[in-house]
Amino acid sequence: MARNQSLLCVGLDPSQSQMAIPNIAEFNAAIIEATKDLVCAYKPQMAFYEAQGIPGLKALEKTLAAIPSNIPVILDGKRGDIGNTARAYAKAMFENWGADATTVHPYMGGDSLEPFLDYADKGVIILTRTSNPGGADLQGLEVESTAGRGPLYHQVAHMAQQLNTHGNVGLVVGATYPAELGEVRAICPEMPILVPGVGAQGGDLEASIRNGVDAQGRRAIINVSRGIIYASKGANFAEAARREAESMRARITATLQEMDRPW
Amino acid sequence: MARNQSLLCVGLDPSQSQMAIPNIAEFNAAIIEATKDLVCAYKPQMAFYEAQGIPGLKALEKTLAAIPSNIPVILDGKRGDIGNTARAYAKAMFENWGADATTVHPYMGGDSLEPFLDYADKGVIILTRTSNPGGADLQGLEVESTAGRGPLYHQVAHMAQQLNTHGNVGLVVGATYPAELGEVRAICPEMPILVPGVGAQGGDLEASIRNGVDAQGRRAIINVSRGIIYASKGANFAEAARREAESMRARITATLQEMDRPW
Repeated sequence: MARNQSLLCVGLDPSQSQMAIPNIAEFNAAIIEATKDLVCAYKPQMAFYEAQGIPGLKALEKTLAAIPSNIPVILDGKRGDIGNTARAYAKAMFENWGADATTVHPYMGGDSLEPFLDYADKGVIILTRTSNPGGADLQGLEVESTAGRGPLYHQVAHMAQQLNTHGNVGLVVGATYPAELGEVRAICPEMPILVPGVGAQGGDLEASIRNGVDAQGRRAIINVSRGIIYASKGANFAEAARREAESMRARITATLQEMDRPW
Repeated sequence: MARNQSLLCVGLDPSQSQMAIPNIAEFNAAIIEATKDLVCAYKPQMAFYEAQGIPGLKALEKTLAAIPSNIPVILDGKRGDIGNTARAYAKAMFENWGADATTVHPYMGGDSLEPFLDYADKGVIILTRTSNPGGADLQGLEVESTAGRGPLYHQVAHMAQQLNTHGNVGLVVGATYPAELGEVRAICPEMPILVPGVGAQGGDLEASIRNGVDAQGRRAIINVSRGIIYASKGANFAEAARREAESMRARITATLQEMDRPW
């Protein structure tokens, strides 16, 4: 964030029907080369590589190798399992793929996240309030807990605080629900929050920044995938991605200035 | 279930430190060959293959090819994501790997499960009450919903009923909580329930069957992994696995007979 003066995370979500060139690894490498001075992180979404089978995962391997080592990689896998199995997933994400952070589901509870959290130098980003309308089906249910009465996603934010003994916990809150983002920020004032949903999903960039950053105007990771990587379907796709990333970063910087939190 | 007169599912969870031989694909093939007349399904756990990287996934590919085509494969991936991304995961599980069913997280709500459910001939097995102690952290919280007042996992079971328009929904309830298993069976009288946690995790086999089966004494899928595949660390591991599977299946059959629900 500080080095590139950016809260922008670029989502590397290759989709055969939308990519300007068919080769996933080459496509991603061009996007990375064009945007690496503009981002705070890259976020490859596992699903898009897995959908292509082993060739897709080989393309992921090449993509990870193309990301400069000083830019964090959030490998978006949304795993969640228990004991032994959680340990195997953590190993897959952090050791096999070498991710700096990964996303996880909270449904199986605190002990299911511990094998991830035990990697004290890796980030564990817990789904809290997701960007889809159906997110409210469970996340919005009122619960009574030790943290008081409130929607389930408040309880998840409280659980995240308690689990954060190594200081390596983050949260996911969708840009499509800026008010809820503000509530979660109030529960977890210092935690990094990954904010997907700006762009194709309709989330508001400025509102996400205002409600998502910490007191210093930092620690909101604003993810944009399709809006940047598919900015053009032509041969100029990498250039177009850079232009779009520059524009997003400038809007973020302008908002932080308006908030009196310049770089 | 009917063909092999069995509710037993064997979990194919290769762990380098426990396998009698180092080659995952060969190990699994021997287990499958030794147990294929005793099971209702096989359940490879994705995490253990992913932890080995691309070679692990190649071993998964070979393992899936070694399973007779008339035995269903539950590919245990516990995925959960939204829209586009959920579609990519469903494609990965059902088209790329060719699984007959997969497990999913409910936390992101009904719309996040629809891309899986749209594969009407594939099973979508929703985490409901998991076998770990921490499962209660969220799943046990009291919520007020359209289905009335109760723990969150009841609400998930109700949601599963509503989502079951294609008749392809199942549930996961741990054997370690037989009372909760009975409650879920009462909410979803006809739905297949995958019951992990017998064996290494300490779940009670007989109680799981009594509380987990439907009115006909069927539709509980009792998964055992370590208790069968690591029954011996010696060269006789496949034979030992068969013996253990035979014993489990016999205990299941005896319990169904006691319940007056023979094959």
